[in-house]
Amino acid sequence: MALVDAPMLMALDGVVAQLPTDVVARAKTYLRLSGNGKTGAYSDPAGHLWVREAIASFIARRDEDSTVAPDPQHIIADGATNAVRIIMQLLIAGPSDGVLIPIPQFPLFTALISLCGGTVAPYYLDESVRWGFNVQNLEMSVQKLKDDGVTPRIMVVINPGNPTGQVFTRDTMEDVVRFCHEHNIILLADEVYQDNIYGADRVFHSFRKVILSMPSPYNTTSCISLHSTSKGAVGECSRRGGYMELLNIAPNQRAQMLKLCSINLSSNFNGQVMTALMCSPPVEGDESYPLFRKEYDFILSGLKERAELLTKELNSIEGISCNSVDGAMYAFPQIYLPPKYVARCAALAQEEEVAADARWALELLEATGVVVVPGSGFLQQQGTFHFRTTILPPQDQMMAMTSAIRAFHTKIMESYA
Amino acid sequence: MALVDAPMLMALDGVVAQLPTDVVARAKTYLRLSGNGKTGAYSDPAGHLWVREAIASFIARRDEDSTVAPDPQHIIADGATNAVRIIMQLLIAGPSDGVLIPIPQFPLFTALISLCGGTVAPYYLDESVRWGFNVQNLEMSVQKLKDDGVTPRIMVVINPGNPTGQVFTRDTMEDVVRFCHEHNIILLADEVYQDNIYGADRVFHSFRKVILSMPSPYNTTSCISLHSTSKGAVGECSRRGGYMELLNIAPNQRAQMLKLCSINLSSNFNGQVMTALMCSPPVEGDESYPLFRKEYDFILSGLKERAELLTKELNSIEGISCNSVDGAMYAFPQIYLPPKYVARCAALAQEEEVAADARWALELLEATGVVVVPGSGFLQQQGTFHFRTTILPPQDQMMAMTSAIRAFHTKIMESYA
Repeated sequence: MALVDAPMLMALDGVVAQLPTDVVARAKTYLRLSGNGKTGAYSDPAGHLWVREAIASFIARRDEDSTVAPDPQHIIADGATNAVRIIMQLLIAGPSDGVLIPIPQFPLFTALISLCGGTVAPYYLDESVRWGFNVQNLEMSVQKLKDDGVTPRIMVVINPGNPTGQVFTRDTMEDVVRFCHEHNIILLADEVYQDNIYGADRVFHSFRKVILSMPSPYNTTSCISLHSTSKGAVGECSRRGGYMELLNIAPNQRAQMLKLCSINLSSNFNGQVMTALMCSPPVEGDESYPLFRKEYDFILSGLKERAELLTKELNSIEGISCNSVDGAMYAFPQIYLPPKYVARCAALAQEEEVAADARWALELLEATGVVVVPGSGFLQQQGTFHFRTTILPPQDQMMAMTSAIRAFHTKIMESYA
Repeated sequence: MALVDAPMLMALDGVVAQLPTDVVARAKTYLRLSGNGKTGAYSDPAGHLWVREAIASFIARRDEDSTVAPDPQHIIADGATNAVRIIMQLLIAGPSDGVLIPIPQFPLFTALISLCGGTVAPYYLDESVRWGFNVQNLEMSVQKLKDDGVTPRIMVVINPGNPTGQVFTRDTMEDVVRFCHEHNIILLADEVYQDNIYGADRVFHSFRKVILSMPSPYNTTSCISLHSTSKGAVGECSRRGGYMELLNIAPNQRAQMLKLCSINLSSNFNGQVMTALMCSPPVEGDESYPLFRKEYDFILSGLKERAELLTKELNSIEGISCNSVDGAMYAFPQIYLPPKYVARCAALAQEEEVAADARWALELLEATGVVVVPGSGFLQQQGTFHFRTTILPPQDQMMAMTSAIRAFHTKIMESYA
């Protein structure tokens, strides 16, 4: 990216000789494809065609047994957050349009649904089955919506899950597809953690691949899938790179999405370059490949080790239970709070509005310096308490964190027994 | 920016010795300030504090006689387009909220007002006085709005103007401020072309400076000003860099803007670096200063020459008249279309919806290969026709373009006389 931003660096004495040949060649290719080096100019609002082609190739390699080739014209490369904004703007006209979102959820979704004036229709992930869910419950959610005069337009599925860390089985995914097809709902598949899989018995399947492998009519289900450069092994979240890919979306809806996208005039160039880099990593034979492979494996295996360690440590604390972190970057453990502690929180909450798990998190912070995000921020089953933490810190910091939580929560359990 | 993206470049043999010392020092400073080199991490949604401090210093230098120092906490550095989106989202609740926009206008504004469901309240710039305007007309626009039950919330002023190329006099600006203050309207000052001033008798004054220099109570007028890295001498429009600065905005409104901004989680890092670079250019004594000065002056003096040339050439074509391009990057000439030509366009328009100036532009394109933007896309006084063109092309291309327009329009004038 740096060479593309400042090609003059390649003209300095000795620079090119010190860099891997494939890196220099790639920078020159990207420069040529970006208006012959005019990288500061507006691009297509949906992103440079060469970037969308790199994304399409990535999808084709990932979903290798799919029968339908991804089409660059059905890809908008302007970040995943912008994608959600555009989708909500297009499909929500007012409170009679509903969006099914998983609880616990990632707050971006409720924020944008609120801004667009739509109705949030929660469906609950089931903590007792590794944050999976039952389609029967979805049918009930939809029936309730329809009774209230709300039409379900979109179903958000986050897989691997944030904050829950689950990875759905293929069976569950097929249930979701059938459900969306039967109710004429567009499936919004937030798949930004697709590289982050740790559970030994879980693999990532894209909804795109699952849909296309199903028999007619389910293979015509409408799906918009999101990916991002903010997660995975890349983790360059400040670059605002990412894309949405449209599958079985009506041409007039696609045209309107491009129109909404064009209000921004241009996708951010550096985010596009980052997305292209993520979608076409070095391959065997490239000079940069060994280093890439080493760094990639180091990052992913470290995350996997810490996912296992964090689950084990949290489950060894009395009053805390946690599903295995099968994917993504987070654990969402349940905290048992003694009734006396909850009663104290309720009494205090009359003065300031703080949920019991939010107070627990604040007191943890005061007592130990450890920051966690209270479960109430992600919504949760009534009467349960959770917090979100992450597998990102180095192992020694993580052990220090779980020790601190252990000491703090043990004291709560004793004091309010 | 490249050195900040890839600090490893500075570790290559001989690279640092070949670059200006201030450039390397600046890259190291920016790296240190951005989380000690963690440039891929999320920043504050409003932008890194050091970036907002660079912006505040820039504003203080630009408005040197202002009594109130700019506050980095009142700056949101996440691009100018995002800024407009946030402002409209905050201040428009529905059709009873009105936004005054200049006609001709930049289409971003009407697009976002429509998306937010607000009411567009046009005010007309007066072509006969170099695209200035009369506050009397504004009073009439507001009265009409109020009669319709619409509350005016925002007044958009684009100065220097797009597409009109005007630069307002200080008197006009003071009129605007008094008007906004009296009607309790927030002034949205789109000042992205502040570096692009060519008219010999016109200088750029920021609305911020004008407001703060006025007597009480006008110095408390609410104003949000926009600036961008897409224009000026920088012209890096694909980086999506820019900022809004809030003056006399109520704390609760500012808090809500930050909340809306935080939905995006993070401002784009490269756009922030570009904004910091624009706001703190090399200064005399820096090794990079002579080259910066040379390039800056070359770009700006070239634009000024072409602004004069374009006006002169267009005014020498029969049936075309054009105000001087005092600022920005565009000319917005009026085209006289013979009644017979307009009648033919009207007849054709029954089949496909194309305004007369849009058809003229299409026929110009077919006949000559020259692309201009029809005035109807920017809105204009009923019964007038315009097109927008730009002073950006090199001089020889511009002369070829005006010759082609001359030949084409002369033929129209003759054929439909």
